[in-house]
Amino acid sequence: MSLRTTLLASAVALAAALPLSAAEPAKYRSAQEILDASPAGDWRTLDPANTLYMELESGRVIIELAPAFAPEHVGNIRTLAHEGFWNGLNIYRSQDNWVVQFGDPTEDEAKRKSIGTAKAKLPAEFERKAEGLRFDRLPDADGWAPQVGFVDGFQAGRDPATGQAWMAHCYGTLGAGRDTAPDSSNATELYVVIGQSPRQLDRNITVVGRVVKGMELLSVIKRGPDPMGMYDKPTDYTPIKAIRLASDVPEAERTALQLLRTDSKTFADATEARRNRRDAWYVRPAGHIDLCNVPLPVRAPKQG
Amino acid sequence: MSLRTTLLASAVALAAALPLSAAEPAKYRSAQEILDASPAGDWRTLDPANTLYMELESGRVIIELAPAFAPEHVGNIRTLAHEGFWNGLNIYRSQDNWVVQFGDPTEDEAKRKSIGTAKAKLPAEFERKAEGLRFDRLPDADGWAPQVGFVDGFQAGRDPATGQAWMAHCYGTLGAGRDTAPDSSNATELYVVIGQSPRQLDRNITVVGRVVKGMELLSVIKRGPDPMGMYDKPTDYTPIKAIRLASDVPEAERTALQLLRTDSKTFADATEARRNRRDAWYVRPAGHIDLCNVPLPVRAPKQG
Repeated sequence: MSLRTTLLASAVALAAALPLSAAEPAKYRSAQEILDASPAGDWRTLDPANTLYMELESGRVIIELAPAFAPEHVGNIRTLAHEGFWNGLNIYRSQDNWVVQFGDPTEDEAKRKSIGTAKAKLPAEFERKAEGLRFDRLPDADGWAPQVGFVDGFQAGRDPATGQAWMAHCYGTLGAGRDTAPDSSNATELYVVIGQSPRQLDRNITVVGRVVKGMELLSVIKRGPDPMGMYDKPTDYTPIKAIRLASDVPEAERTALQLLRTDSKTFADATEARRNRRDAWYVRPAGHIDLCNVPLPVRAPKQG
Repeated sequence: MSLRTTLLASAVALAAALPLSAAEPAKYRSAQEILDASPAGDWRTLDPANTLYMELESGRVIIELAPAFAPEHVGNIRTLAHEGFWNGLNIYRSQDNWVVQFGDPTEDEAKRKSIGTAKAKLPAEFERKAEGLRFDRLPDADGWAPQVGFVDGFQAGRDPATGQAWMAHCYGTLGAGRDTAPDSSNATELYVVIGQSPRQLDRNITVVGRVVKGMELLSVIKRGPDPMGMYDKPTDYTPIKAIRLASDVPEAERTALQLLRTDSKTFADATEARRNRRDAWYVRPAGHIDLCNVPLPVRAPKQG
């Protein structure tokens, strides 16, 4: 029992193939083998104008924004980031198996940090017309939505009866906290999901993007002691050095990153390899995968 | 926009009821209101012989063991805990959105800590006969199993075609790491799920219990840098002061804890209140809840 093999098999472990039966026409390839063999065109580069860098003392969290779903919120977020709204503010909430949240928690509105030229009032952007969106549907059953799949790298739901589509809450989803009124968000108070997918929030709040790299910096933030994860003293806050649009960052300081296109054959093949694991470790392929269990691969661009 | 109300609504927030329509016979009660009104008999006390205390520098993690599903593993775990096997060992793996794992990672089997009188060889206990188990079925659809529900407080799957039942992997599930051979676990290397429910592991590995309190101590453990969450230096390990059976701990040092019975009306009612949120915040009740999204309430016993 070596260190490597006694451990619970995971995403990256154990690519060995089972002996093939006569009925199996092709050798099973693990998701990693499929990714390793992928054509360059199956990857896309993040658009710097849609990319946020959140700079923490522990490192950089990289977020892709979703203007196709939340144009007004993303517009405000671009303005807020461009004008440095979050710089020097904090992550002031960390609730286990739920969310971390950041912005300005000041109770007294008059004392809150100025939002500069950002809009004070935004519409609720809980869903939109599905028309005009490429929707790469996941064939698997889902209890929360009539259809689920991917829209340009974002997990999404769709309802043919209403013709609407929306972003789903998965691990890493970025949303805009709101008050009781659906249109009470101004996109300053943002949360990131750090636990079991809270899909009951879908279509109840505006989702604005997704963390594509750096979740491990947010997920380990010490939980606040109150039931909603609020801290009882500001010294427990996690300071935000800056949140900037990648397009506002000098090119030399940007993080080069490619995402697997969710409309690619590589993505479909890698998802199938996860849906039905037929490596040496798994004794029973699941025959199913949930929307929020589908990996969304990210890599550094290949050199040369 | 006060601090409390601008935030994303969560488990404990916003119990206010919507105005009732004529068609609604009863006022909506939040899950918390239902719990607050529950009869004492709907709660159970943990059996100290089935309870582990994991003592970390940050506090106590409380685990309920599941002998009904994994009698051989639980037997070994009781022996290992009673003889102090994990005392002074470490959490040596923390993989984001996956698991933390603990035990003895020593590569060289000869140099590994003695397992004392525990058995060196255990059978795989991936599933068992459903017969003889009370199964409180969740009516909601599930993609991973023909039926899902609760067995004495544990999330479980069931297949009427095979007559088998098994424990499901949710946030907080405790399992026994294994090598490629299904029966290669000796229950020394245990993992706890800290991310999106990896249900693909169901029936592929032996589940031995569930963390009932203290997940917030495990979920924040700094992730290891390698793809499987292993640390590159032992100084990054999280030391385990002790893992003991509650029955081996003096009564005065035990943590009094009650769990809501999953066969109670209170549990069914609280689950329905989560399946269809009709408070002031939610604009669209989900009409669905996933097995791993159902809260399993825990409380300190009421005084007096």
